[in-house]
Parts: sequence; structure tokens; C-alpha cells
Amino acid sequence: MTPQVSTPHVSAFRWVPSFAQGHVRDLRVRWALEEAGIPYEATLIGRDDQTSEDYRAWQPFGQVPAYRDGGVEMFESGAIVLYLSRKSSALAPVDEAGRARVTTWVLAALNSIEPHVSGLASTDIFHKGEAWTIERRPQIVEMVVMRLQALSDWLAGKDYLDGRFTAGDLIMATVLRDVPDDILARFPTLEAYRARCLNRPAFARALEAQMAPFRQNAPAAA
Amino acid sequence: MTPQVSTPHVSAFRWVPSFAQGHVRDLRVRWALEEAGIPYEATLIGRDDQTSEDYRAWQPFGQVPAYRDGGVEMFESGAIVLYLSRKSSALAPVDEAGRARVTTWVLAALNSIEPHVSGLASTDIFHKGEAWTIERRPQIVEMVVMRLQALSDWLAGKDYLDGRFTAGDLIMATVLRDVPDDILARFPTLEAYRARCLNRPAFARALEAQMAPFRQNAPAAA
Ligand SMILES: N[C@@H](CCC(=O)N[C@@H](CS)C(=O)NCC(=O)O)C(=O)O
Ligand SMILES: N[C@@H](CCC(=O)N[C@@H](CS)C(=O)NCC(=O)O)C(=O)O
Repeated sequence: MTPQVSTPHVSAFRWVPSFAQGHVRDLRVRWALEEAGIPYEATLIGRDDQTSEDYRAWQPFGQVPAYRDGGVEMFESGAIVLYLSRKSSALAPVDEAGRARVTTWVLAALNSIEPHVSGLASTDIFHKGEAWTIERRPQIVEMVVMRLQALSDWLAGKDYLDGRFTAGDLIMATVLRDVPDDILARFPTLEAYRARCLNRPAFARALEAQMAPFRQNAPAAA
Repeated sequence: MTPQVSTPHVSAFRWVPSFAQGHVRDLRVRWALEEAGIPYEATLIGRDDQTSEDYRAWQPFGQVPAYRDGGVEMFESGAIVLYLSRKSSALAPVDEAGRARVTTWVLAALNSIEPHVSGLASTDIFHKGEAWTIERRPQIVEMVVMRLQALSDWLAGKDYLDGRFTAGDLIMATVLRDVPDDILARFPTLEAYRARCLNRPAFARALEAQMAPFRQNAPAAA
């Protein structure tokens, strides 16, 4: 492991509209760093930075989060959290089999569940009121419910996905946070699981750290 | 690293309809194993297995691929390929910074690009002809094109995402394979990149290994 030669930096937005506040994906990285007890700094960016050559060299899609520390430069919230999970046993067991399962659950959250949950956010937020959403929404809900049912079956009688809190739970909980409450309410196991994860003090610290700049940089009322 | 105590097993389907043949996600794991020169066996499953308690204990969503070797039991194609990338320098550099970038690109392919490409498969294959797709499809194409443009910009003048072929390119190429040809054709850099990756002999071996059982288990003509 390379020595910690500089404070980790995480990119985040200076300000976002209220529907997105508390849900921007740098939250995952902040939460992981808080769990690991690693101090960090946020690099706050705005709309213009998203298309700048400099920022695109760090995050090719112009999104947040991106991450750097002494030795490493990377992006993708899931990848950064996986990287951090190898630095701190607060985020993953140290044995190979345990780490493989943490990797599994991070990918399950981000590749088997989140795409469907994001599809729902598309119909309900970004394309709200458009005609196509009326026919399409029930199909997406059906996919989300199918995945949540499988996840709920897996979690029956368990506190966490794989024995103890890991980076897998951290990512999964942030995905479940974006499931509409009336849908999650059909799965009491998942409601309890989500609450169990989000009640962690490190989550509260991460959330507050994301929100603070939004209050400070709120545009003046029109 | 634990010694290789048993041959890796990868779950795959005994047979799938022709539109899916050659595109089932065990292909990614087979390809990674071929690149690494690790012999493996396929565990072929059918519709009934997908809901069996035994299989769900291995793959909670009833999908393929799932993976096991002597020490490890896991699922999610992206996670398995990341795991294998730590076993073989054919799939990733061994330094921490290089590995972090491989993790980054695997996640970028699976969390920033594939969800939009899958959305297009939804309109064009699974929901073909439904009224909502007429209004929705151009919006999805716009998202796919936006992401492909950023990827194409990143790859300008490069042969691979990060200096040499890695697990990141392997996963990205499988995602680009599912982009409709007329859309990929707008990005000559990406067409050349996809061809460069798919021309690897290990890919051809993986594809043939997925296809062979489909020929053998094809249902008798009705
Ligand atoms: N797969 C990426 C997604 C990143 C992402 O969606 N970031 C959003 C904020 S949550 C963003 O930057 N949106 C602004 C934009 O796309 O212009 C990750 O997990 O890091
Ligand atoms: N995120 C999963 C997705 C797996 C997946 O979509 N598998 C498909 C085949 S490509 C499957 O098993 N489909 C059958 C089903 O969902 O019933 C992965 O990458 O492993």
C-alpha cells in the first residue's frame, strides 16, 4: 500500500436544485471516507467546469464524483468506494473471498438494481407528465419490484448483505434511498435494512458535508 | 493469493433464443478467463433452475453468470471480471493506481453507459412496437449518443482506455457490442476500438464456448 502522500480530494457540485440535494453521488464517496475515518477535501465545481478540458481529463463524462489522492486518480462512485474498501477494514473484510463478495454486491446494486430505479426517476422527475410515461411506468415498476423482491428474499433474517456492514451495503442503501417510499413500503425487510444502514453516524456526517455548500451557494431568490 | 484448489465454474444458459445468443453475460467471464489462460467449466442451467432455491443461493436474481472457484463464490459479470483481473496481469496492471483505473472503467461501462444501451434494447427488442417507444426512443438515443461522444473524445488517439488492454476494455467492448450499428457508426473512433477489442483470439474462443451448447440444445423445430 502506498503511503498517504496527500489528502484525498472528491469532486462535488457547488450547488444543485433542491430535488437533487442530498442525492448527488459524491455522497457515496464521502460516506465511505467517513466510515473509514479518512479526512478529505471536496473540490466544488459548477456547470462550466463540467465541460472544461481539465475536468474532463479527470471525469470524462463531466459528472461528479471524481477522486484523487497521492497515488491515485479515478472516477465512478462505485469504483471509488471499492478502491477505498481495500484501504479500510471498516468497509470490507480483508480475506479474498470476503472482498469478492463486497465487489459482487457493489456491482449488483449498480448494475442489477440502480438502472431500473433510475428509470423510475426518469419517468417521475425528468420526464414527468410526458405521454409515454403513462404506458411505460408500470413496466418499470414491475422490473423494480422484481429486483427488490429478490433482494428482500436474500436479506430475510439478515442484518446486512453479507454478515456485517460493508461497502456493498453502503452502495445498496444509497440505491434504495432513491426508490419511491410507496414501493419500498411493500418490502418491510428492505425498509428496515435501509434504515439500519442510513442510521449510521458516518452517513449523517456525509450528508451534512454534501448539504453545507448548497446552503452557502444557494442562488439569490429571483 | 490462495492456491487454485478447484477449476472455476461459471453458470450459463443451456439454450437461449437466437437474438440473445452470443450476448449472454457469461461471455464476459469466459473472455476474461480466456485472456488469463485459466481453464474453467460451464455449469449450464435452464428456466427451472433460475427460480430454484439452490441457484438463488448462488445468484439471488436467478440470472447468469454466477461464479465459483476453490476459495470464492460470487456473481455479477462485472464483479467476477474485476476479481479475475487481480489474478492475472493479462487483465490489469499490478500497481494500485493502475488497478484503480481498471475498476473505474469497468464501473463506467456498467453504470454510466450500459444502462442507456439497455434502455435502447428495451425499446427495440423487448417492447418493440409499443406506442410509448415512439416518443421515448429519441430521448434514449440522445443519452446514448451523449455518453458515446464523451467516450469517443476520451479514446481519441488511444488504442485502449488506459494505455493497454485491460478488464476495463473487455467490459466496455461487450457494452459497445450491444449498441445498434447505425448509432456506433457515428463514432469511427469507437467502431475501431470495438473491433480492436473483439478481434482478440480470446474473445473468439469465449464466444464459441457460449454458442456450442446452444447448437447442441436447440429445441426441435415445432
Ligand atoms: N455512474 C456515475 C454517475 C455519476 C452521476 O450520475 N453524477 C451526477 C450527479 S448524481 C451528475 O454529475 N450529473 C450532472 C450531469 O450529468 O451533467 C457514478 O456513479 O459516479
Ligand atoms: N448485472 C448482471 C446482469 C445479468 C443478466 O442480465 N443476465 C441475463 C443474461 S445476459 C439473464 O440471466 N437473464 C435472464 C433473466 O433475467 O431471467 C450481470 O452483469 O451479471
